[in-house]
Amino acid sequence: MSTAWTSRYAQRMKNIHSSAIRELLKIVQNPEIISFAGGLPAPDVFPVERFREACRMVLEKSAPTALQYGATEGYEPLREMIARHTSRYGVKAKPEHVLITSGSQQALDLIGKLLINPGDRVLVEAPTYLGALQAFNVYGAEYLCVPSDEDGLRTDLLEEPLRSGPKFMYVLPNFQNPGGTTLAEGRRHELVLLAERFGIPIIEDDPYGQLRYEGEHLTPLVVLDRENLRRDRGYSIGNVIYLSTFSKTLSPGLRLGWIVAPPEVIKKLVQLKQGADLHTSTFGQMVAYEVAKDGFLNEHIKVIRHVYGERRDVMLQALEEYFPPEVSWTRPLGGLFLWVTLPAGMNSHLLFEAALKENVAFVPGDSFYSGNGFASEGLRHFRLNFSNAEPDLIREGVRRLSVAIKNQLAGLEPEPVVT
Amino acid sequence: MSTAWTSRYAQRMKNIHSSAIRELLKIVQNPEIISFAGGLPAPDVFPVERFREACRMVLEKSAPTALQYGATEGYEPLREMIARHTSRYGVKAKPEHVLITSGSQQALDLIGKLLINPGDRVLVEAPTYLGALQAFNVYGAEYLCVPSDEDGLRTDLLEEPLRSGPKFMYVLPNFQNPGGTTLAEGRRHELVLLAERFGIPIIEDDPYGQLRYEGEHLTPLVVLDRENLRRDRGYSIGNVIYLSTFSKTLSPGLRLGWIVAPPEVIKKLVQLKQGADLHTSTFGQMVAYEVAKDGFLNEHIKVIRHVYGERRDVMLQALEEYFPPEVSWTRPLGGLFLWVTLPAGMNSHLLFEAALKENVAFVPGDSFYSGNGFASEGLRHFRLNFSNAEPDLIREGVRRLSVAIKNQLAGLEPEPVVT
Repeated sequence: MSTAWTSRYAQRMKNIHSSAIRELLKIVQNPEIISFAGGLPAPDVFPVERFREACRMVLEKSAPTALQYGATEGYEPLREMIARHTSRYGVKAKPEHVLITSGSQQALDLIGKLLINPGDRVLVEAPTYLGALQAFNVYGAEYLCVPSDEDGLRTDLLEEPLRSGPKFMYVLPNFQNPGGTTLAEGRRHELVLLAERFGIPIIEDDPYGQLRYEGEHLTPLVVLDRENLRRDRGYSIGNVIYLSTFSKTLSPGLRLGWIVAPPEVIKKLVQLKQGADLHTSTFGQMVAYEVAKDGFLNEHIKVIRHVYGERRDVMLQALEEYFPPEVSWTRPLGGLFLWVTLPAGMNSHLLFEAALKENVAFVPGDSFYSGNGFASEGLRHFRLNFSNAEPDLIREGVRRLSVAIKNQLAGLEPEPVVT
Repeated sequence: MSTAWTSRYAQRMKNIHSSAIRELLKIVQNPEIISFAGGLPAPDVFPVERFREACRMVLEKSAPTALQYGATEGYEPLREMIARHTSRYGVKAKPEHVLITSGSQQALDLIGKLLINPGDRVLVEAPTYLGALQAFNVYGAEYLCVPSDEDGLRTDLLEEPLRSGPKFMYVLPNFQNPGGTTLAEGRRHELVLLAERFGIPIIEDDPYGQLRYEGEHLTPLVVLDRENLRRDRGYSIGNVIYLSTFSKTLSPGLRLGWIVAPPEVIKKLVQLKQGADLHTSTFGQMVAYEVAKDGFLNEHIKVIRHVYGERRDVMLQALEEYFPPEVSWTRPLGGLFLWVTLPAGMNSHLLFEAALKENVAFVPGDSFYSGNGFASEGLRHFRLNFSNAEPDLIREGVRRLSVAIKNQLAGLEPEPVVT
């Protein structure tokens, strides 16, 4: 008798299912398809020359360190750079507040491991980043879902769910994935005050913050938390853990993210990371540092803003031109995504199948809801990515999509009676 | 009132403590100290030129892929290479049996996530790799500890613990960490038969298997499991999950390991890895492939065997020469470590402190026991690494260590009565 592995899986595996996006992305490998599905950066903005030079430098000057085991906390000069960078927004972070992670996704996994007991509730935006739901599901999280509008999370609806005692709130304030919305200034203040009042911490996920194409940078929650509450006993008493990444500014293929948190939290996360993967690639960290240093990252971000800003404009213009008036969408100030709302009666899964026949793809909205009563809401939406495809393809893709939408819309109407 | 983070930590954090080795390694940063503590490869065997060329090639030919998001399963040509390589020993693995992980440590974490419910027992060798204990502790594992001798795990003692129903067995058959022992051929057969009889799967961890300095390669458990049990319905019904890594053959800094398992298990592990870090660095995987390909890895392993084999011999000779007869040690056929046994009454923690004063370091043995009744046994042992230091330093380090041991031994004897 040989082992049936399935009978040996832990309880938590009942919460784990393959990501719909993942399955979709397999379908859209077909090069004929114009895909707005992934959250992929444009490969044409990768700073390849700079990477080549960085690899050469690291291997010439520091190979014995770069190829060896390293500290779990991360490569010290990189932690210092991130601390300096974060401090520009007023956080006054030091290297000991920074943990380098294997992409932001690992940050979410470590936070789930640190904070979630089975059955604990996590307050999330509806819709929210599905990778966070995946990371938290493993630890048995349940969800309190609070709707968003064009100004981000509806802070006016927070009191009741906060009263029911979630373990923490998970929020993407800038150019939210998938909504493309940005949390308004006033709501940011409200949010940190509510967090303080109810004693509920905030995980602030900010992968896209630097990719703003219009308007002024808004203050991160982690900074407001300090300013509003006049914290004067050092960083260690803050309510906010801040996450970011190089995935949207340098390269997602390197898998480099970071956590900024009070030292006591960092210390625990380091212990968890040790058991999870010992440390993030030393070579990758040193190369990223070499690429980013001497102000290159900031200059490079200007290039990305220019390219993605143009693509956003092209997509918004094409949507205006091609989409029927029954369909609406968000107008993101930055990031990679916008969020489309279909008229009542339409179903984004059926639309997805029709769109594939037109050789265009997107992600149906239900993937971004935790499932508690929002499943049907999810089917009225879908997410479009505008960073990956070139402008001509964006226009063509939106045109194809509009064909699929119009066909579906036509199907909704009663057949004209032919006499 | 600001959040007290500690009050929000999940239950599982009670099982998490900083690794003793980690704390020790901080102490031994001092360059005056000859350290036998870490498990570090020798930096002088890193194939730096080959890495430089590989980075150049990958960025010249495949930058848009290398810097982009990749598949969770791993870079396909690397999976194929590992499958081919594994098949040489008779496993007949295909790419779909291989999952690339962020170092072997992540493989242990994912397996813990997949299989361990709080309170589940895991059967381990005593002593065993402490990184595995760290990974499994997070998921609430308890342990059934079975002693080893110079032929590895005492399979004659397995029936009783297997009868009590552990979730799985975790075994390092080759040049075990920390023991340096190798599981004898006959015991390998016994082990897979017992696994089958009791229906208890085996996790076979094999980071050092290729670093053999004398004798013939022994068949991996994953192969014996197939051969002995005449499995003819494909790979999917095996009892053994096999783990290995590039950390000891190419570079630990890259964080690249892999899991070979039945496809149904790989599928579940892929879902877990998606939530844990999306995927392992695409760039790192492509560079490792470019370094390893065309037979380079096998040639390079010959170099490492030569260098480490010599260092092992130097250490064994120095131990013979300097250590007092009351102390004994294992004679590893490969790997990075040997295991020292002190006479009754001595304490490896006290010895560690004394050794530091002589500017030499090692890891006291208690770190490698899960704690159930073996704590005092652990204090009679310590682990020595022989791969990292150069031969002259190995001799000098062992000499220094012998001074500390002799001083401690002298302290154990009754003071001569002076009249």
